[in-house]
Amino acid sequence: MRILVGNHIDPSIRARGDMRAWTQRLLWFARPGDLLVLCCEPDDAFLDYALAHTGVKRSELAVLVAPAGAWGDQLLDPAALTAPVFVKAVRAALDTAGGPGAVTEVFALWPSASVARFAAALGIEDRFPGAAFFAQGGGEIGNNKANFRALAAAAGVPILPGRVCRSRAEAIAATGELLELSGGGAVVVKQAHNGAGVGNQLLVRDLELAVDHVGARHLHHLAPGEDGIAAYWDQRWPWASEDGRWPVVIETFAAGADAVYSEHYAADTGSEPTEMGRLLYVGRRLSHQVVPLDGVSDPVRAALLEGGTRLAEAYRAFGYRGHLSADALVLPDGSVVFTEVNAQVSGSLHIYQQIARHVVDVAAAPRRQVVEYHVPPTWTVPDFDTFLAALDETGLTYAPATRTGVIVSMPAIPLAAGAPVQFVFCIAYDPATGYDDAFARLGERFQTLPAGAVDASEHVGHTAVSFSS
Amino acid sequence: MRILVGNHIDPSIRARGDMRAWTQRLLWFARPGDLLVLCCEPDDAFLDYALAHTGVKRSELAVLVAPAGAWGDQLLDPAALTAPVFVKAVRAALDTAGGPGAVTEVFALWPSASVARFAAALGIEDRFPGAAFFAQGGGEIGNNKANFRALAAAAGVPILPGRVCRSRAEAIAATGELLELSGGGAVVVKQAHNGAGVGNQLLVRDLELAVDHVGARHLHHLAPGEDGIAAYWDQRWPWASEDGRWPVVIETFAAGADAVYSEHYAADTGSEPTEMGRLLYVGRRLSHQVVPLDGVSDPVRAALLEGGTRLAEAYRAFGYRGHLSADALVLPDGSVVFTEVNAQVSGSLHIYQQIARHVVDVAAAPRRQVVEYHVPPTWTVPDFDTFLAALDETGLTYAPATRTGVIVSMPAIPLAAGAPVQFVFCIAYDPATGYDDAFARLGERFQTLPAGAVDASEHVGHTAVSFSS
Repeated sequence: MRILVGNHIDPSIRARGDMRAWTQRLLWFARPGDLLVLCCEPDDAFLDYALAHTGVKRSELAVLVAPAGAWGDQLLDPAALTAPVFVKAVRAALDTAGGPGAVTEVFALWPSASVARFAAALGIEDRFPGAAFFAQGGGEIGNNKANFRALAAAAGVPILPGRVCRSRAEAIAATGELLELSGGGAVVVKQAHNGAGVGNQLLVRDLELAVDHVGARHLHHLAPGEDGIAAYWDQRWPWASEDGRWPVVIETFAAGADAVYSEHYAADTGSEPTEMGRLLYVGRRLSHQVVPLDGVSDPVRAALLEGGTRLAEAYRAFGYRGHLSADALVLPDGSVVFTEVNAQVSGSLHIYQQIARHVVDVAAAPRRQVVEYHVPPTWTVPDFDTFLAALDETGLTYAPATRTGVIVSMPAIPLAAGAPVQFVFCIAYDPATGYDDAFARLGERFQTLPAGAVDASEHVGHTAVSFSS
Repeated sequence: MRILVGNHIDPSIRARGDMRAWTQRLLWFARPGDLLVLCCEPDDAFLDYALAHTGVKRSELAVLVAPAGAWGDQLLDPAALTAPVFVKAVRAALDTAGGPGAVTEVFALWPSASVARFAAALGIEDRFPGAAFFAQGGGEIGNNKANFRALAAAAGVPILPGRVCRSRAEAIAATGELLELSGGGAVVVKQAHNGAGVGNQLLVRDLELAVDHVGARHLHHLAPGEDGIAAYWDQRWPWASEDGRWPVVIETFAAGADAVYSEHYAADTGSEPTEMGRLLYVGRRLSHQVVPLDGVSDPVRAALLEGGTRLAEAYRAFGYRGHLSADALVLPDGSVVFTEVNAQVSGSLHIYQQIARHVVDVAAAPRRQVVEYHVPPTWTVPDFDTFLAALDETGLTYAPATRTGVIVSMPAIPLAAGAPVQFVFCIAYDPATGYDDAFARLGERFQTLPAGAVDASEHVGHTAVSFSS
């Protein structure tokens, strides 16, 4: 049996809002006998739905809700894991299953020091890979976009021209240099800790630049000359650095690039690649992702695998253990450059490891593929049941017989009381026909706003439920 | 020929005061043909004095002063290294010596991204070991006391019980836990970036604890109970974390420990140990250090070497290149625990590599040893000439014939106009007789205040010239 912890990045590193839905993707990983730790009571409808797909029985799982801490039930308070009352409850739950000694692994969505302390409190820190490293804050080292650039450079992995800045003056100098270097007169500014492009801002000299598909939620049109650069940083340094707290990455913008990733698992004995996939941005917003990776040449695939492997080995070398995702861009000339490593359970693992491989079994004949979509900001879905009903009516409910159709990946929780729900859902499809038709049919049902009605820079769900990393 | 850069930690990471004297220790490393880059005109008296000891002629060196930047001539502005006018001046200086192609190494006191850019501007980034890593801010990763704990834990190197904290709440919880763990009811709080114990604060429940010899400049007497802990952090979190900017290390206090270090050089091909030594604190202030290390048992020496080697290999694995110092404590039971790594040119390298080995040649028969003292805060030395005259009068001037006596290690620059001078000086001595007598004779000349007159928490030179890392 294993203990699965539905946590998120430590709030002391990056404060988030309501992560109840996003962290319940943990349910996809559950196997019979597992003990799951969540920040909230699981969403009953979704719990039954997910387990119906994985074939695990509710009675085969133990689910414990950690005591409410500073974030109520919206986010697991790291300190709650070692609250004596909770450790006692976990011990009691384990007693019926052979005690802590029967735990084969402690698995957490984020490699928090609190998980290492939790494992230590149970006397099973050796079941949490990398426990000693994570206990001393190692999780932060491996999830920092600035550290990534230094570590990748040392490992000889290709990265875009760029700099890591610790002050506004450095940022101003770097922006000027990198704008010169970039052909199109554009750079990307990245917060050290953020996800899904929400912490990225694209700075352009020319608004005509085609940037809709880029993973940078924010856009800034630079005023001419050095003054334009200085004005930008006067305004945005506090945002980019979180008031000077973190280094800021500035990179040249790669026009016309495709976003891909290579995932790996770093163990004591070595690392192994786990999957490759593709990320697609619409309106500079993460829209959907596809696994397994298709539509790339063999050399691109080889370069992605090689760079990802090097990064996995580099991260393993300094102490990281567990899943990691190496993000990359395929440039128009076919070269592959790496942009960040997320050394945590990504937003892809449940898709490829559980839904694509276990539920759909994409590698079996006839071959299948899986895309996971965010409900677009232009749709209005009133609730989970309405969505399931629409799937039935449109013939899009996942069908084991054809191994095609829609599987909702996460609970559908309203952004606010009475508001429409936001969630992510997978479409399993035949690669020969693709997923556009299925997506369009759902759009016919739920799209209520024209595409242009949503400001790309607006962060849906930011102040309410979050549905991405 | 080499280029030696007399820089210091990037001010964007840790702001310092006047580093003119401290960075001129660069002169000890100069060999015929070298080009030295300093933040200020070299101190003529000290330049002649140091070169007289190393045997290098003034005419064999090129010394360039970088353009004054944000810190005037007190500290090298990292941006000044790539100012076009300066790069041009360096090229001109190199032209007479075969051009940039004749440079065999770029050596910097601190592994700044600016040095990597400077080397790139000259087209010789391959002569700066680790250039790609340092160009992306890697220097910060290897000089962060919080990162150290995670990296050491991953490498299996013994460290004291402790935690890395990213918020006041975490610090309060960690302090309570660690006070329980520590036998004596004391913990040490460490800033992520500081040196020579100035960024350390000792928290004690009991003021009777013998703490004079500890490397923690600041002392706090905790009020009883949890309130005392919370009150401390309410007051000191902004100091310890630099307003939330850096993680804070909290460790149990190891009473009765000796401070030692093991230095190593990390190259592309592997790492090698370079020297071990001992640090001595008086009034919780770094007072003096001794090389080579003596007075330890063989098992202690072996443990120090093994842990230091592991750390050097771990730092090398993630990309660090160059000199590094692994600091450790020898506990009363003879065990060795590591406390930090300084992945930069330490305050020891000039002592052991240049003064002890080259000038004194300590390993030759009869064997010698070297101690380097800070001028104690209780002394009043009016100027460099007066000090040299006193050495002559007391027979303490370094004598090549006996290979004993005093060698001043750094320029003697007044803390303020007309104020007494502060500096560091070495005493080469016969291990059989020790250095106490020589130090006492100097004290008879210069001590003007009783030992108790100086507040240990006061940082001499902090607002003026700095004489330590």
